Amino acid sequence: MTETESWLARLADALERRDIAQTKALFADACYWRDLIAFTWNIVTFESRDAIGDMLQARLGDVRPHAFEADARDGWFRFETSVGRGVGHVRLKDGKCWTLFTALIELKGFEEKAGASRESGVEHGAIRDRRTWTDNRQAERERLGYDQQPYVLIVGGGQGGIGLGARLKRLGVPSLIVEANPRAGDSWRRRYKSLCLHDPVWYDHLPYLPFPDHWPVYTPKDKMGDWLEAYTSIMELNYWTSAPCKRATWDEAAGEWNVLVERDGKPVTLRPKHLVLATGMSGFPEVPRFPGAESFKGLQRHSSQHPGGEGFAGKRCVVIGSNNSAHDIAADLWEHGADVTMVQRSATAVIRSETLARLGRPLYSEQAMKAGITTDIADLTQATMPFALQPAGGKAMVDQLKRDDGPFYERLRAAGFLLTFGEDDSGLGTMYARRGSGYYIDVGASDLISNGDIKLKAGVQVARLTERSVVLGDGSELSADLVVYATGYGSMNNWAAALISQEVADKVGPCWGLGSGTAKDPGPWVGELRNMWKPTAQGGLWFHGGNLAQSRHYSRYLALQLKARLEGIGTPVYAGKQAQREKALA
Amino acid sequence: MTETESWLARLADALERRDIAQTKALFADACYWRDLIAFTWNIVTFESRDAIGDMLQARLGDVRPHAFEADARDGWFRFETSVGRGVGHVRLKDGKCWTLFTALIELKGFEEKAGASRESGVEHGAIRDRRTWTDNRQAERERLGYDQQPYVLIVGGGQGGIGLGARLKRLGVPSLIVEANPRAGDSWRRRYKSLCLHDPVWYDHLPYLPFPDHWPVYTPKDKMGDWLEAYTSIMELNYWTSAPCKRATWDEAAGEWNVLVERDGKPVTLRPKHLVLATGMSGFPEVPRFPGAESFKGLQRHSSQHPGGEGFAGKRCVVIGSNNSAHDIAADLWEHGADVTMVQRSATAVIRSETLARLGRPLYSEQAMKAGITTDIADLTQATMPFALQPAGGKAMVDQLKRDDGPFYERLRAAGFLLTFGEDDSGLGTMYARRGSGYYIDVGASDLISNGDIKLKAGVQVARLTERSVVLGDGSELSADLVVYATGYGSMNNWAAALISQEVADKVGPCWGLGSGTAKDPGPWVGELRNMWKPTAQGGLWFHGGNLAQSRHYSRYLALQLKARLEGIGTPVYAGKQAQREKALA
Repeated sequence: MTETESWLARLADALERRDIAQTKALFADACYWRDLIAFTWNIVTFESRDAIGDMLQARLGDVRPHAFEADARDGWFRFETSVGRGVGHVRLKDGKCWTLFTALIELKGFEEKAGASRESGVEHGAIRDRRTWTDNRQAERERLGYDQQPYVLIVGGGQGGIGLGARLKRLGVPSLIVEANPRAGDSWRRRYKSLCLHDPVWYDHLPYLPFPDHWPVYTPKDKMGDWLEAYTSIMELNYWTSAPCKRATWDEAAGEWNVLVERDGKPVTLRPKHLVLATGMSGFPEVPRFPGAESFKGLQRHSSQHPGGEGFAGKRCVVIGSNNSAHDIAADLWEHGADVTMVQRSATAVIRSETLARLGRPLYSEQAMKAGITTDIADLTQATMPFALQPAGGKAMVDQLKRDDGPFYERLRAAGFLLTFGEDDSGLGTMYARRGSGYYIDVGASDLISNGDIKLKAGVQVARLTERSVVLGDGSELSADLVVYATGYGSMNNWAAALISQEVADKVGPCWGLGSGTAKDPGPWVGELRNMWKPTAQGGLWFHGGNLAQSRHYSRYLALQLKARLEGIGTPVYAGKQAQREKALA
Repeated sequence: MTETESWLARLADALERRDIAQTKALFADACYWRDLIAFTWNIVTFESRDAIGDMLQARLGDVRPHAFEADARDGWFRFETSVGRGVGHVRLKDGKCWTLFTALIELKGFEEKAGASRESGVEHGAIRDRRTWTDNRQAERERLGYDQQPYVLIVGGGQGGIGLGARLKRLGVPSLIVEANPRAGDSWRRRYKSLCLHDPVWYDHLPYLPFPDHWPVYTPKDKMGDWLEAYTSIMELNYWTSAPCKRATWDEAAGEWNVLVERDGKPVTLRPKHLVLATGMSGFPEVPRFPGAESFKGLQRHSSQHPGGEGFAGKRCVVIGSNNSAHDIAADLWEHGADVTMVQRSATAVIRSETLARLGRPLYSEQAMKAGITTDIADLTQATMPFALQPAGGKAMVDQLKRDDGPFYERLRAAGFLLTFGEDDSGLGTMYARRGSGYYIDVGASDLISNGDIKLKAGVQVARLTERSVVLGDGSELSADLVVYATGYGSMNNWAAALISQEVADKVGPCWGLGSGTAKDPGPWVGELRNMWKPTAQGGLWFHGGNLAQSRHYSRYLALQLKARLEGIGTPVYAGKQAQREKALA
């Protein structure tokens, strides 16, 4: 029996006897238990023996964990609860638990139909007035949203909404996705022309249908759009295009939403029990209002509206911002022969794409695949590490990349570029969790900045615009035919304010961020991404998003939460102290 | 060292020393060597030591087989030739070889880019006037067929053309698929409404992108159509819709084809080096010309034109034929409330779908997947058995299904249905290879026939049609509002006659069939499917088709043959006696 197996046996014994003191004694002084809806119907991390004890006190009677079984892979185990099956992972230190991870994987009696349990596709035999797959599919398409209400309405049909839609479909939860654009995939197609995914292919799969093995490492944006469109068809998603959501109101008495959608220009009122905002972690453009902007005679637009550098040869272009989009757009303008200046208002974390692929994503690579690390195993492994412990790993990686790419960073600094690796030097990963921005994954623009091909104004703010220029805080003036605001995106919470009400948005509080106490991520410490993929303070309101890997993995837990509610399985949400902390923010 | 390993070592030694006598001595008196383009640049089975010796005499110097290495799975091995890598399989009897199988898997230096060798998708760095994936894809779409000629033109964009197109794409062979219908997948969508694939899902994957694991066991035809359409987009195939091929002429001097295609009504002349007819093994409707047909006042149509039973409630419908389509269409008409009579002109092989899935496709099943038998392994395993030996296996299966489904067959016989299991009782598999027809995979119609819901006229021919009836050879008359000719399809060779010329069609000879000497499959014995996936008597002309599994597997060898020709790799075709035999037929 390995050390893990022996610890697991003791945990199983203590939990099954509901001996909380005994359970607590299995944890080290510094301990973390991250739960994805298995024990808490919530996504939450407990960061002390007492917090763990409190949770068990409240939840053990209901959860009734049992059937613990160690997996062949060390640290991993399986278990069951009163309603489902779960997977877990433990890290020990001196025989006691340092980190514990538990996740609900499926609901008993509501397993996804796949493999041996897949559907037949046809009922063999002779059936009068048989209805074919096409008949049923067409009837569903025609009725849903009119004669029959979706249980779940997903607003936003990008990769987030589509992946979640696929999970709900496999779980048999009647769902509808509404997308403002005319085609599935347009959220990618409409971005600037040179865009390719910054993460490599192994990180970017959607659920159930992996990319074929010749898929390029960095997916071009239009190819990603086409993939999403094909996926939507293959997965038989109910997906309305050209259907912007205009307004949503919670009907407390009926326990459902009233949602006004304009489908092909015609108003349709939907009454789902649950509303998922999958409008994009980066979906609400933040456009600064600089004095004089209204008098600027050139073109000005947010990065999300900028199609690309074509037609700007010889034009003077100012890109305000210094994260991914700013760099990509500046380089693309340069490639098209424009005269480009980047205005860097604050320090940026930069990591070379190749270095990130090598150091930052070892679980998502060809080597990992060969070693039997499936995408699912990689996702779960990634999820076992509590957010509180991630900066340590981030710092080690930052040390490594400073060593590996020293000359690269030297050149950037020499060009005046303001570099950071995060407030605590923990790098891009924690930065993404804390604020969802602040970095550039270099695919070529950094060299253009180092050698002066892209001009740089660093450490300055924009004071105002004139008819033909951008005036900076240091008094300097940049002539401009084009100004691109690569100024990022607001919290998804803005969508709640815009579609529902400011009151609901305030009640729910902001999305994303951990409460790390760093800039743009005020405390108190929460320890999980706020409001993402889990119950919010507003009944029936959910937020879904994140990068492709997050959308893929966490859509499973969001889908299971919705399925449990559809089937009337009790889902008492346990938040511990987290709830108060999140509330403190609102 | 296992018996296989030791035999393999002796084979390797004899071949590398080019000792033909020694090699021949390794084979039993009754022996078979099936080669898929590894030794012969042909698809051919040698059925005696002498035939094997002759082939080696002619080919060893060029092929230079070496690097034989036994696989972990018993019987399997890998080897290399002067130009490629291959896989092989051997069955021994008393220490000597009974069956040998060799297949070329890839060409050295022209391996498919996949996994670790996949493309980047983007060129990182700063590139003036960069061309994006979208630019390149769009330029390719616009130029191909106009400014740039495809190396391969595939006529017919059903599953065959599409799967082959995907293989050629991965191999970098410039190809174009032309399809008469307005959408990819329409060849399925246009079939009768109740149609579902008769083979289970594990048998039906396309190359590279398996169905997701919830895909139904029996794919409904419109869902199959949608899958093909999505697949075409995902694989970035050059695919012209609404582009019927009108005429093709071989330009001997230029060594290329002149092909007239009508794209969206406008004529386009294409000049490919190779022309692949992928117009469907079942693509050339065979419509009998019965006396009086022109005077019939009701509806009459071939099964391929029949949309379904809707609107025929209470109508008198006569279905002529008794294979798959005839049964499906008759049952569908009955389900819609029609009065249906089936005219069975000759005996039919019937096997229950469930029984076929259980007995006939053990390699393609959930259990096989769990046992590590991938689709690729299953395809190769299937291919190891020479056609000459397949009837024995077929007979064993027929014995089994007669035992398992005795009462089912008894009921059919009692209703007057004429049953056969093939001329030598070897069942449906050999029947398919011999003539591509003659059977029904029962999904429900047989019970309707047994209990008289579908009326039956068996063992009679159609004498003539009147204005309102079908008159049979026994003098009986069937009143009819609808006559469906479920009378099957002609050889793919008919397409060569229709598109090229009767002369070329005659030179090439018929497609399909083994020369088994059974009805519809005249001898002499050929031992392989005539003209399928391999060089024909007409330079630059190829035939591709078959069921989904065959299309999937054999498209690999057809694609490699085309790639080798594109790259100027020598491809001397060795046919042995087969060529003369095939010629005897022409």
